[in-house]
Amino acid sequence: MAYNLLKGKKGIIFGALDHHSIAWKVAEKAYEEGARFVLTNTPTAMRFGEIDELAKKCNATIIPADATSEADLENLIEKSMEIMGGKLDFILHSIGMSINVRKKKVYNELNYDFFHKTLDISAISFHKLMQISYRHDAINEWGSVVALSYIAAQRVLYGYNDMADAKALLESIARSFGYIYGREKKIRVNTISQSPTRTTAGKGVKGMDGLMDFTDRMSPLGNASAEECANFTIAMFSDLTKKITMQNIFHDGGFSSMGMSMRAMKQYNKSLDNPIEIE
Amino acid sequence: MAYNLLKGKKGIIFGALDHHSIAWKVAEKAYEEGARFVLTNTPTAMRFGEIDELAKKCNATIIPADATSEADLENLIEKSMEIMGGKLDFILHSIGMSINVRKKKVYNELNYDFFHKTLDISAISFHKLMQISYRHDAINEWGSVVALSYIAAQRVLYGYNDMADAKALLESIARSFGYIYGREKKIRVNTISQSPTRTTAGKGVKGMDGLMDFTDRMSPLGNASAEECANFTIAMFSDLTKKITMQNIFHDGGFSSMGMSMRAMKQYNKSLDNPIEIE
Amino acid sequence: MAYNLLKGKKGIIFGALDHHSIAWKVAEKAYEEGARFVLTNTPTAMRFGEIDELAKKCNATIIPADATSEADLENLIEKSMEIMGGKLDFILHSIGMSINVRKKKVYNELNYDFFHKTLDISAISFHKLMQISYRHDAINEWGSVVALSYIAAQRVLYGYNDMADAKALLESIARSFGYIYGREKKIRVNTISQSPTRTTAGKGVKGMDGLMDFTDRMSPLGNASAEECANFTIAMFSDLTKKITMQNIFHDGGFSSMGMSMRAMKQYNKSLDNPIEIE
Amino acid sequence: MAYNLLKGKKGIIFGALDHHSIAWKVAEKAYEEGARFVLTNTPTAMRFGEIDELAKKCNATIIPADATSEADLENLIEKSMEIMGGKLDFILHSIGMSINVRKKKVYNELNYDFFHKTLDISAISFHKLMQISYRHDAINEWGSVVALSYIAAQRVLYGYNDMADAKALLESIARSFGYIYGREKKIRVNTISQSPTRTTAGKGVKGMDGLMDFTDRMSPLGNASAEECANFTIAMFSDLTKKITMQNIFHDGGFSSMGMSMRAMKQYNKSLDNPIEIE
Repeated sequence: MAYNLLKGKKGIIFGALDHHSIAWKVAEKAYEEGARFVLTNTPTAMRFGEIDELAKKCNATIIPADATSEADLENLIEKSMEIMGGKLDFILHSIGMSINVRKKKVYNELNYDFFHKTLDISAISFHKLMQISYRHDAINEWGSVVALSYIAAQRVLYGYNDMADAKALLESIARSFGYIYGREKKIRVNTISQSPTRTTAGKGVKGMDGLMDFTDRMSPLGNASAEECANFTIAMFSDLTKKITMQNIFHDGGFSSMGMSMRAMKQYNKSLDNPIEIE
Repeated sequence: MAYNLLKGKKGIIFGALDHHSIAWKVAEKAYEEGARFVLTNTPTAMRFGEIDELAKKCNATIIPADATSEADLENLIEKSMEIMGGKLDFILHSIGMSINVRKKKVYNELNYDFFHKTLDISAISFHKLMQISYRHDAINEWGSVVALSYIAAQRVLYGYNDMADAKALLESIARSFGYIYGREKKIRVNTISQSPTRTTAGKGVKGMDGLMDFTDRMSPLGNASAEECANFTIAMFSDLTKKITMQNIFHDGGFSSMGMSMRAMKQYNKSLDNPIEIE
Repeated sequence: MAYNLLKGKKGIIFGALDHHSIAWKVAEKAYEEGARFVLTNTPTAMRFGEIDELAKKCNATIIPADATSEADLENLIEKSMEIMGGKLDFILHSIGMSINVRKKKVYNELNYDFFHKTLDISAISFHKLMQISYRHDAINEWGSVVALSYIAAQRVLYGYNDMADAKALLESIARSFGYIYGREKKIRVNTISQSPTRTTAGKGVKGMDGLMDFTDRMSPLGNASAEECANFTIAMFSDLTKKITMQNIFHDGGFSSMGMSMRAMKQYNKSLDNPIEIE
Repeated sequence: MAYNLLKGKKGIIFGALDHHSIAWKVAEKAYEEGARFVLTNTPTAMRFGEIDELAKKCNATIIPADATSEADLENLIEKSMEIMGGKLDFILHSIGMSINVRKKKVYNELNYDFFHKTLDISAISFHKLMQISYRHDAINEWGSVVALSYIAAQRVLYGYNDMADAKALLESIARSFGYIYGREKKIRVNTISQSPTRTTAGKGVKGMDGLMDFTDRMSPLGNASAEECANFTIAMFSDLTKKITMQNIFHDGGFSSMGMSMRAMKQYNKSLDNPIEIE
C-alpha cells in the first residue's frame, strides 16, 4: 500500500492496546498513508499495552483518556488540536467492555449497574466524544468519524451478552449524531461491522474458537482480519467516501449475507449421528 | 382453535398439493374459521395431489389455473367471484418452482430460459394475479393478499439456487403492488417468510435434512411447522392486521434474528477435530 | 370483534394513562377477547390518568410500579400471580420517556444523567421486567411478551432525540432476551413498531402535526390508529403467532416500506417556489 | 486525487453514455488511478453517446455488447482479455432500462413481455456477465465486481415502476453469485445504492425534480453526485475493500437512514394550509 490517502489529515485513534488490536493496525496504516494523529486509551489499558512502541513508530502523541469521562474527553480534544495545530479530520472509536461478561453474569441475570457501565463505555462514550468535538468545533468539514461494531447488533450470538445491546445502541448513536453532524458540519459518521477478530480484548469471549471456525466457513471470503479492517477504515477516512454517512457497513467476508454455506454445512453434518454427505 | 376469525370472508388459495402443503393447512384453518374459498393449482399438480379430498372437506370448489397464464388467472378470478357471489377478501399465493434446481443446473451454470421460468412461476405470477384482480376490482376494501417466502430472499443458502432470486423478486412485487393496492383500494399485501418446511414440493432441495437440523437448533422456538404457519396466515387474513402492509414477516421460531445459538454451536463443535466444550 | 382469542389467558398491561393510550385500547380489546389482567403504571402517571375507570370497566386490578425499580417489578409480578392464581400468558410494555426531550436538550447537547434515565425507563425496564419474570418463572410456555416501538429505531426523525436510541436498545433487548426466553421456556418476545400516534404522552413531540400529515400521505393505508394497534397486539398475544419471536413488526400502514408516495410528493411539490405538477 | 489505487489493474466498464453518466465518471477516475479498461455499451446507446471521446481520453478500447446477449458478453470477455493481455480485476455494471416506464405503462398495467425485458436488461444481464466471466476464469483473485443500484430495491418510490423489482433482483443476484465467486475464486461482488442522479438515462423518470429536491433536503450531506459515486466505486475496486462482499452499500448522503429531517419537514410544512412553523 501507501497511496497517500490521508496526506495532511489529522486524527485521534481510540483503543490501540497491543499489536492484535484493530486500532493498532489502523494507526499503522494511517501513518503509512500520511496522517498525523493522537493515540488514546484508558490509563489502565495503557499499563498493560504496548502503546508507547506504537506511538514511537507512528510519531504520535499519547493522551490518556477515560472515554466515559467528559472532562477527559474535553482535555483530549483540546490537547489534540493544540498538538496538531488545528482541527481534526478523522476519529476512530474502538472501545467496548462488559463487566457482566467479565463477571460471568449471564444475560438473564444481569447486574444493572454493570449494564449501564457496558452501555456507557461501549456506546455512550461515542456520543460524548462527538458532543464534545461538536461543542469545540474540532472536526473539519468532510471529516470522518468511525466506530467499530459487530453483527450482534442485529442478530443474537450466544454468550455475547449485553455487548449486543451496546452495539445496537452504538449504531443508533452513529445514525442519530450522524444526522446532526452531517446537517450542520458536513461531517460523516459510520460504523464498521467487523468479523469476529482475535484481539486481546476479545480473548475472554466464551466459545470464540468454535464461533470463528463457523463464521470462517460461512463467509465466502473467510473472516476478515484486523489488518484488512484497517485498510477499509482508511478508505472510510479518505476523501473517497465523502457521501457515505449514518451507515453500518459489514466488513466480514460476506458472513452477514449468508444463511448457510456449503463449507459450513459439510462441517456441521459431520456432527450428526447419521452424517449427511453432500456431493 | 375456531374463533370465527374469517366468518363471511371469501378467498382463493393457491398451492395446496397434499396434506404436507402449507396451503393445505391454510385451507383447513380458513374453513374452520368460517371462510369460503376456491382452491386452485396447476392442472399437473392436481394430478399428483389429493386436492379433491381437501375440497370435499372444506366445501370448496376447485378451479385449475396455471399461475403464469393471464387467461387462466382471468378465468379463475371471474369464476371465483361468480361461485362465491361477490368480491374476495383474501388470497394466498404459495407457488414456487425452479427447473434449474430440478435439472441440477448450479447457480453459476444457469439456463436462462429456465431462470425466466423460475421468476415467472415463483414471482411474476404474483404480480399477474394482483394485476388481474385489480382490473376486475375483485377484492373488497381491507382485503388481504399473502405470499409465502423464504429467508433466501435476504441471505444465501447453499443449493437454494435461483429460487433465492425469485423470492427476492416476490417480496419486491409485494411491496410495489402493495403500495398501489393500499393507496387505491385499501387492500394489504404481505409476504410471510417461513422456516424451511418439509413439503412434497420442498423434498428435492439438496441437503434439506442437515439444514433443517441446523435451523431447528438455531431457532430458540425451533422450526415453525406448516400448521403453525397456517395459523399466522389466518391472522394476516383477519381484521386484526388491517394496517400491516408491504411487509415481509418472519415466521421462523426466531431463526432470522440469530447469529449463533448455544444449541447449534454445541452441535457444530462436535464436528471439529478438537471438540470444544461449552459449559 | 370478540373472537375469544385470549380466553383463559392472564397478563399484565403497562402504560395505560388515558383513553388515548395504546395500552388502554389493548386493555379494552384484551378484556373483550376473554383475558384477565393487571394494569400497571407509575404512581405519578396514575395521578394524572383515568386508570381507575379502565380497571373498573375491565374488571382488572391496578398495581402501581415504577418500571425502573426491581423491587416494584418484583412486587408486581408476585402480586399479579397471586391475584390471578397462576402464571401469566402475556405482558405489554408500553413505556417511554425522555427528560432530555422534556427539558428541550437537543441531541448534541444531551445531559448524560438524563440519557441514562431515558434508556433506563424506555428500554432497560423491559429487560428488568423479563429478568424478574424469568426468575419467578412467571410466564407460561408459549406466553407472549410485546413492547411498543417506533421506526426511529432504524431511521432518524428530527426531534425524536435520544428516544430513538432508546427504541434501538429496546428492540435489541427484545432479541437478546427473546433468545433466552425462547430457548428455555418457549416464550416469545417481539416489538411492534407503530405509526406515530396522538397520545397524551406523545403530545410534547416537536412538529408532531406536520410529521403525522406526512406519514399519513406516505403510507398507502394511512397512519395506523391506537385501536388498530391494539387489534394487532391481541393477535400477537394469541395462539396464532406462537412461532414468531425476536421480531420487530411494522404496524404502520406501509410507511416503513415507502421511499416516496404520489400523495406525499404532490403535497411536497406545492411547497416549492415553482410548483411541480404530477399528472 | 490520483493515488494510484488501481495501478496495474484491468477492467471493463459498462454503461458510459455521456459525461452525465456515473460510468463515465468511473472511467475517468479509474484512468487517473492507473487502471486500464475496456468500455462497453449497447450499439444503440453508442450512437447517441459520446463514448469515443471518453475512450480517447482514457486510452481505452470500445467493444459494443448487448448485455442481454450471451454471445456478445462472451465476445466482450474474450476480446477484453486479449486486448489487455490477461485476466481482469474489476467490472462495473451500470445498466438499467424499462420499456414499461418508457411506454408509460403504470405498475398495475404492466406488459409482461416488457417486464421480462426490464429484468433481463437491468438484472439478469449481471448474472450473465458473471456466469460467462466465471466460465472463462476471466477475473483475478481478489477482483471486484460492482453494480449500481437504487433504494427502490427496499422502498417503493412512486413512478419508479418495475425498475424497483429489477433492482431488488439485481441485489439478490449480487448476493447469490457473490457467494459462489467468493467461495471459489476469492472475488467480491457488491452493489452501490446511489442517490437519485440526474443522468441522461434517468431524465425520463416522472417527477424527478421534486423527488431530488426532497431527497436532498432529507439527506444530511445532500444528494451524492455522479462524481462522488465514482470515487467510492474506485474504493470498492481497490485493495482497501478486499473482504467486503455480498453487500449493498448506500452512497446517498445519509438518505437511507432518515425518517424525517428538519430541512425536509420545514419545506413540507410550507405546503400545508395552516403552515406549521418549526423553531
